[in-house]
Formats: sequence, structure tokens, C-alpha cells
Amino acid sequence: MARRVVALAGGVGAARFLAGLVRVLPQEELAIVVNTGDDRDFFGLRVCPDLDIVTYTLAGVVNRETGWGFEGDTVRCLDALRRLRSDVWFRLGDRDLATHIQRSDRLRAGATLSEVTRELAAAFGLRVELLPMSDSPAPTMVVRRDGTRSDFEEYMVRDGAPEDVASLDLSAAREAKPAPGVLEALAEAEIVIVCPSNPLVSIGTILEVRGVRARLETRHDAVSVSPIIAGAPVKGPADRLLRAAGAEVSAAGVARLYRGFCRGMVIDKQDAALAPEIESLGLRVRIEETLMRTPEIAAALAKTVLELAGRAA
Amino acid sequence: MARRVVALAGGVGAARFLAGLVRVLPQEELAIVVNTGDDRDFFGLRVCPDLDIVTYTLAGVVNRETGWGFEGDTVRCLDALRRLRSDVWFRLGDRDLATHIQRSDRLRAGATLSEVTRELAAAFGLRVELLPMSDSPAPTMVVRRDGTRSDFEEYMVRDGAPEDVASLDLSAAREAKPAPGVLEALAEAEIVIVCPSNPLVSIGTILEVRGVRARLETRHDAVSVSPIIAGAPVKGPADRLLRAAGAEVSAAGVARLYRGFCRGMVIDKQDAALAPEIESLGLRVRIEETLMRTPEIAAALAKTVLELAGRAA
Repeated sequence: MARRVVALAGGVGAARFLAGLVRVLPQEELAIVVNTGDDRDFFGLRVCPDLDIVTYTLAGVVNRETGWGFEGDTVRCLDALRRLRSDVWFRLGDRDLATHIQRSDRLRAGATLSEVTRELAAAFGLRVELLPMSDSPAPTMVVRRDGTRSDFEEYMVRDGAPEDVASLDLSAAREAKPAPGVLEALAEAEIVIVCPSNPLVSIGTILEVRGVRARLETRHDAVSVSPIIAGAPVKGPADRLLRAAGAEVSAAGVARLYRGFCRGMVIDKQDAALAPEIESLGLRVRIEETLMRTPEIAAALAKTVLELAGRAA
Repeated sequence: MARRVVALAGGVGAARFLAGLVRVLPQEELAIVVNTGDDRDFFGLRVCPDLDIVTYTLAGVVNRETGWGFEGDTVRCLDALRRLRSDVWFRLGDRDLATHIQRSDRLRAGATLSEVTRELAAAFGLRVELLPMSDSPAPTMVVRRDGTRSDFEEYMVRDGAPEDVASLDLSAAREAKPAPGVLEALAEAEIVIVCPSNPLVSIGTILEVRGVRARLETRHDAVSVSPIIAGAPVKGPADRLLRAAGAEVSAAGVARLYRGFCRGMVIDKQDAALAPEIESLGLRVRIEETLMRTPEIAAALAKTVLELAGRAA
């Protein structure tokens, strides 16, 4: 059953936006296609950061300060694991670990990531349709200036997202088959929303998955929220990655990346001066508060996005 | 390098005894061959209850009340996992989980159980040589009166160790190859000690591993501590299992099971009256406090065992 609205999503920014969206749209009308380029195994456990961030946020159990993990979670298991091995640099809380244990166990038993994601979403009480972009691993690789390659979490968390990015390698996403339902959702939805996420390693990976960009370009009606406010990302390394890709770190820079499939973009009030430039690229612009400090701000932003898409919420 | 003393061990009783033993014997002189018949996967994590009980106890981090798990451990992960699946009946604490995550990850990477056990023992600061009885899974199966089969943890923990035991199936142990070093340790040790553990599902499984019983029978000089006091086990279902096996639930019943390879047994003061019967089976007997309520009692017991083996501690 196709959902009326489909959103492409990465991590924290997307999740906060989606929490606002489900305040103005019934969850049953929403499908979310989530980046899996950041996924990887830690100690034999499959961790899918963006899927979990979206799940925990929509379930209302996310750590509101960090935007990821559970509110009030402890890290007793990982503290103990640190005494047994030297490569414990990724923080996974005790409650959070249960998700990864369950996912890993189901995957080893032969379930697909789509199936496990659906089970976990249901267990957390979600009624949105939550779709990984692909059931195949599609790790985003960061090529460093010294020629070494890191997966995204190694670059981001282990190494602290330094400036030394030479390029991104999204070839795994390019070879990945879209998960069941992804292309159908994009074909049948009335509205496609590009959440405020990293344009390269969150949205960019989804776009690379076979058939996704073509499907979106055919529609050419997606609406997006700029993840860049006043020349800087709210969170994460989008500035470093955009610069490495030769793109401008601004809402207009993002609009240039999205213009092939987007017909509208909501930009922050601080970026009002960029509206003419973005409109000249062929996108309709709405100016709104986009720093989602509260769920109410996120809901207002979501309402504006839906209106920009030509629908009343 | 062979150790001077080798102990065959199961879970809590053995661990408490061993904690006493290492008060009167340098850890460097001790090798411990541990039952792995209770091992199994939970949610894709390999759990080795007896190895962990011995490790945690000797490391001084065990929960002293239960005899297993970490002192002061929390169960936040498993509480969370319980919301994601219905088969969470085995209690694994948050710190404890780190051990299982590490073991499972190393096993999946191709390490043997012996290798992982050695790594974990070292990480916990142990200087004893800790040997699983086998590197191959050798699950003890409990055949119930209704004909169904349960592994030991299902019988013991999930079902609460009911009386409905028809028989034990130790065929997996019988087909298991001893772990590297086990037969050598048993051949070269000056002293072999059978710890106070379940004679059937802890010691019995070790004896079934290829070559172990024959090696012990050739020596015929092991010394043991009766796990039965006044007709009842201190802990666990030994009474039910002994009855199902047609054996007497007493120190004398255990002596009959061990007489083929034991030349001595320490029994509890409460069982002093059984000494003549056990001596008539060809075992020398020492009478001692065997309920190890304190480490001091365990150390005194260990001293008596070493003396019975003909060595001063």
C-alpha cells in the first residue's frame, strides 16, 4: 500500500524534522527512505545509525541532547568491553545495544534489513513505513588526503571528522539494489520530501542507489529543507564534505545539488538573501525558521514543506 | 608448560573452591579444565556459563550472592531486548554482555574457544591456565519424560529444573575432541582435583570428552570434593539428575561415580557417617567443612584437598 508522502532521510536533522512532520501528518501516510551508508558492524553487531535515530526519535525515546541513542541510557556494557579490546571508540548505550543485538541476530538468521527494520519499527510503536535505502551493505567511504580510506563512522566518530577529505566514494551505494518498496514508494507518492540531512553522505547516498535518482528526476517535484543555515551545517561535517566536493556551503550550494529533482526548498530566515539565487535555479523558495529547537518549530517547518509541495497539511 | 595441579570444574561450587585453592597455591601452578556442556547461543551471542563463572570468581568481580555474573551488574540491555523479542529468559547483565559480545566476535573471526578463553582470562588478570574441555560445541541435552529434548540452560533456567528428567544425552561431549592442552595437562600434572560440581552435567561431560576418562583412569589418583552435603546439592539440580541416572544422592553416590579414577574424596562434616562406605569403595576420605560460605573456608578446604592428594600446600 503506497504512502501519500515519502521522505528521504539521514540522521538527526531528518529525525527532528520527521518528528515535526508526524505532528501534522498521520504516520500512516508517511514512508521514510533512510540512508544506510553509515551502517557498519561493531564487534559483530550491525549498527544502522540513521535508521535507529529516526526510529528512536519518532518513538519519543531518543536522547534529545545528542539526537541519537536513548534518553538516559547508560554505557556499562561498552565500558566493560573497553577492558577486553582496544577498538571501542563508538558509543553504544546499554538499551541501544539491544537493538543491534536483535538486528544482528535476525540478519544472521536470514532476515533482510528491510524485514528487521519493519519489525523494529513495529516494536517501537511506529506506524510510518520505514525503509532502508537498500538491503545490501552500501558503506560510504571517505578518501583521505593521504590516500587512505575510512568508512563514514571511522572518519566521523573515530577520527573526529577532520578537514582532510579528498573525496567521497559512494560506489557501494551505486551498486546497491534499492530495498523492496523504495522505488514503488517514490513512484506512487503524492509528495516527496528531502529532509534536512547531509546532501552528500545522507541524501547523496540514497540518490546513488540504482534507480532512485532517475525516479526522482522523472517526477522533478521533490521539496527539500536546506540543512545549511548561514553557511554552516547545524550538525555534522557537511561543510567539510561539500568543500571537498567543490560545492558551496550554503542553501544555494545545496539547491544546485538538488535542482535536478527538486522544485522547492525551504531555507532559513537567516538565508533570506539567498532566495533569488535559489529561485533562479528553478526552485520555489519558502523562508522559515529551520533550526528545530523545539518540536513545535519542527511541526511548523513541516507544515510549510507540505504547503510548498502544494498540499495543505 | 605443564601446570602442577589440574582441576576439573563446573560452575559456582567449583569457582568458589578454586578461589580458595588460589589462596593456597600460586595461580601459575594451576590449570582448570572447564565444562562447556552448558554453553549456548543467546540472540547470536555465545555464552559459556561455567567458563565465565570461574573467570569472574577468580578475578574477584563475581556477584557473590548468585555466584554468577558481575557484582552490581545492571540488566538494562536485556530489559530493552525483552521489548523486541519474546524469548529473553536468560539473565545476562550489561557488563557480562561485553564478555559474550567479545567472545562471539572473536569466534566469528575464526578464533577457537581455547584462544578466546585465554584472551579473556588474561584480560581479567588471571594467571591460571583456563581450558575449555573442548573447542567444539558439546551441548548437554536433557531428555524429558514427555520425550522432548532441552539443552541444559533451557531445562535449568527457562523451565526451572523440574523433576521430569528421563535421561541425559552427553553424546555431543562424547564426540568432542578435547581442547588443545587438556590431555597434556591431565598427563603431566602432579595432582588432579575434581571440584565440587555436578557429577553428571559438569564433571560428567568433561569425562565424556574423548580421551579424558581414559587418561584419568590410567592415573587413578584424582582427589575430589563431594558436591552433595547431607543428601542434597548445595545448588542446582544434581539431586534430580542423579535420581534420573539411578544414582544415590549422597557423597557415597558420587564416590561410586568417581571410583574409577579417584583415590580420595573430601566429604562434609555432616556426612561423616558415610566415610566407611566411601572408603570401602577404595577412596581415602577426609572430613571437612565443605559449604564454602567464606573464602577462608574454601581455602581450608583446598588445603585439605591438596593434603589428601599427598602434597603440603
